[in-house]
Amino acid sequence: VRQHMAESETIVAPATPQGKSALSILRISGPKALTITALCIKEKKLFERTPARYIRLYTAKDPVSGDTIDQITGIKYLSPQSFTGENMAEIICHGGKLISRKIFSALTNAGARSATGGEFTRRALLNGKINLLKAEGIRGLIESNSETELFCAQKLYSGTASDLEKWRKEIIEQLERIEASIEFEETEMLSDTSTDGKRRIEVFLQQLKKDIEKREKIRIIENGIKIVIAGPVNAGKSTLFNKLVGKERVIVNREPGTTRDVISEQLWLKGHEIQLFDSAGIRNTGSEIERESIEKSREAIKGAGIIIWVTAADEPLRTEELQELLSSGGKNTTICIINKIDTNDGKEKKTAIEKAGIETISVCLKEKRKSGIENLISRIVKKIENIKDETEMPDMLLNARHEEIGKALLRETIKALGEWERPEIAAVHLRKGLSYMDEFFGYVNSEEIINNIFKDFCVGK
Amino acid sequence: VRQHMAESETIVAPATPQGKSALSILRISGPKALTITALCIKEKKLFERTPARYIRLYTAKDPVSGDTIDQITGIKYLSPQSFTGENMAEIICHGGKLISRKIFSALTNAGARSATGGEFTRRALLNGKINLLKAEGIRGLIESNSETELFCAQKLYSGTASDLEKWRKEIIEQLERIEASIEFEETEMLSDTSTDGKRRIEVFLQQLKKDIEKREKIRIIENGIKIVIAGPVNAGKSTLFNKLVGKERVIVNREPGTTRDVISEQLWLKGHEIQLFDSAGIRNTGSEIERESIEKSREAIKGAGIIIWVTAADEPLRTEELQELLSSGGKNTTICIINKIDTNDGKEKKTAIEKAGIETISVCLKEKRKSGIENLISRIVKKIENIKDETEMPDMLLNARHEEIGKALLRETIKALGEWERPEIAAVHLRKGLSYMDEFFGYVNSEEIINNIFKDFCVGK
Repeated sequence: VRQHMAESETIVAPATPQGKSALSILRISGPKALTITALCIKEKKLFERTPARYIRLYTAKDPVSGDTIDQITGIKYLSPQSFTGENMAEIICHGGKLISRKIFSALTNAGARSATGGEFTRRALLNGKINLLKAEGIRGLIESNSETELFCAQKLYSGTASDLEKWRKEIIEQLERIEASIEFEETEMLSDTSTDGKRRIEVFLQQLKKDIEKREKIRIIENGIKIVIAGPVNAGKSTLFNKLVGKERVIVNREPGTTRDVISEQLWLKGHEIQLFDSAGIRNTGSEIERESIEKSREAIKGAGIIIWVTAADEPLRTEELQELLSSGGKNTTICIINKIDTNDGKEKKTAIEKAGIETISVCLKEKRKSGIENLISRIVKKIENIKDETEMPDMLLNARHEEIGKALLRETIKALGEWERPEIAAVHLRKGLSYMDEFFGYVNSEEIINNIFKDFCVGK
Repeated sequence: VRQHMAESETIVAPATPQGKSALSILRISGPKALTITALCIKEKKLFERTPARYIRLYTAKDPVSGDTIDQITGIKYLSPQSFTGENMAEIICHGGKLISRKIFSALTNAGARSATGGEFTRRALLNGKINLLKAEGIRGLIESNSETELFCAQKLYSGTASDLEKWRKEIIEQLERIEASIEFEETEMLSDTSTDGKRRIEVFLQQLKKDIEKREKIRIIENGIKIVIAGPVNAGKSTLFNKLVGKERVIVNREPGTTRDVISEQLWLKGHEIQLFDSAGIRNTGSEIERESIEKSREAIKGAGIIIWVTAADEPLRTEELQELLSSGGKNTTICIINKIDTNDGKEKKTAIEKAGIETISVCLKEKRKSGIENLISRIVKKIENIKDETEMPDMLLNARHEEIGKALLRETIKALGEWERPEIAAVHLRKGLSYMDEFFGYVNSEEIINNIFKDFCVGK
């Protein structure tokens, strides 16, 4: 129904952020996109006779003053073969804060209107070029802060997230059957077809449940896997933190217990986004402040995906340390760094810890050589990859909106199954569930849903 | 000499700033630009057979893992018809922080090296696609913060700044003549040709002097014309400042003398960049702090291009105020706002000020109606345009480097003219001047000059 709703205005927006950069892109879309762009190009005739999708050098000018603005490249797209489905043009000009703005002004002087956030994608949706899920995918691609979010966005964008579509058909089928049976006052609810239908809906319920669980799990790794550096005081935790972060972020000195709070940094390790935490050293202490920060460290450790336990080779392994080390993380999630091997080879400590099932790396973090750190990084990356391999991505619920709908759908499905022997009531819940599914796919013509999706969408997309 | 120096490595860089945006561009340049790009495209064959400069949809993938990254558009350029003169490719992908980075990694995985700042432009220069002045122009286009800087950059970029080239030939001619006369021991320095040569160099000297003066003048308007809001205390200066800036930037209250310091904001007024200053109210006062801030206001007024004097209709016009008003700016640069006409029509004040030759606008700034402000803005814009019309742009010296060289050139030219009757000495100075000119055009093969120009150049250009 929503297809081919013509928008009469031609819109323009910058499609790249402002800043000191080589290039900027401006996008123009609408029925007059090509004539408006031509008005801002000195080589008007050349632009007009250049075929679609062929990039060429032009000179941008203001249509009112006639002033030359910049040398640009321009591309035109002909409806319906464009992102929005309308006639479109793209202008690539020099970056920086002035030129893109001047060309923008030139285009508005020539009759284009400044686009609102997401207006290009909204037009693509209204013109049937993309569906609601793909529009969400585009938003996700642009806004993703982590691999996990990006994965979900890519799935939405590429349109492979369609299991729910199959289940929607199943529910419609069941509803039709139930409603027919009600109409003809048949008491066929205990018949074979009814039992079979119930079984199928139960399969859906399990899949939905699992997907909601997966979504809850990926939230833990969504902003990068948490890696906590822990261990006794003065073992070199902050030195390691700084080496990994690559700058002098924490003041490192030799006074025991200098890192009072949990300090964190978001960084990329060989293509994996992580949140690295440096925690206060753990030891028995009388000080109130220190006890507090040790408490914070223990909390950080609890939420960690990977623990890097740093211990000094020249300190004997106390029973409490081994207990703390073993209780803080599993064998698969902990790496123990035996530091300061310049003072003591730490072999005894190494043997004891490895006997407990924890892998170790012996290093001297003070040293400038990178080999120890590189070895550690590749071990961390291996653990990250294990965690990622074990984390299953949801199949159907790919963002917060989907999760919310999924939970509502779950409630209705449970209710429908519980009332299966009372078809009138089961039908009410199935119908409600169906309406949630329609909302999911954007089949209901709700301005509100669309507005919510396009809220805060960036300009130019 | 520098032409066609082949660079063996293929480089890649993002050409747009990172940020939440519709699109991002990556640029690849070098002998392997097309094969490397093809390795990161699923539709490799299609990319390979697509003609140059034709934009097409592809799927970007990592060449190592084979993972799909994003739907992109790609364009290829064939050497020598590209920005750098080498084979090049441009990839346009979705904006945001992850996708562009992933495609960048894919391209480096396929064999490209991360480009250094300005490396694309440097290659264009080395391959003879552009000269040193055009390279400076590109830098200027990207970095300009004001219309004036942009104008100079555009002049450099378009290559119309070539008067100095003519004068360079003149100096070479004079040098050849003088050196020939020295060789043949002629004493022809008083001959007609010598007098004529001297006259021509004098014309050059005058033009150079004028250009240096122009550069010094445009520095005043380079970052936007300074507009200072001044006038007696509690007349509504801060209210006006906020109305122009369009937000509640300064706390406005009715206690006289609330704006202690000079507050400023850079903004655009109908396409003109201005620096708007709100100054402390001027009055006779005993307070040390107030006297200091009034002193600051007077200083701000001194450097102003336009003064907006705000005065209250319900306060009589004191002689001191009129004196201050007349001494602070000329008739062409001052606009007087008679505010608070809701309390008093202020006709007397208006007549007195206009009799002194200052134009006035009567308004009530408290009111929400925009008409008063709109009228004021169009009057300000008229004054800005007058100032801009009167400011002459330099013809030869278009940036700080040029100015520095210009001044050195001026010194040598003056010396040469002063020693015109002693040809050996005049020749020394002319030759030195010539070397400055060669430096200006980049004719001397100095890595240092080039490095200086490309220092802090943005990546991707």
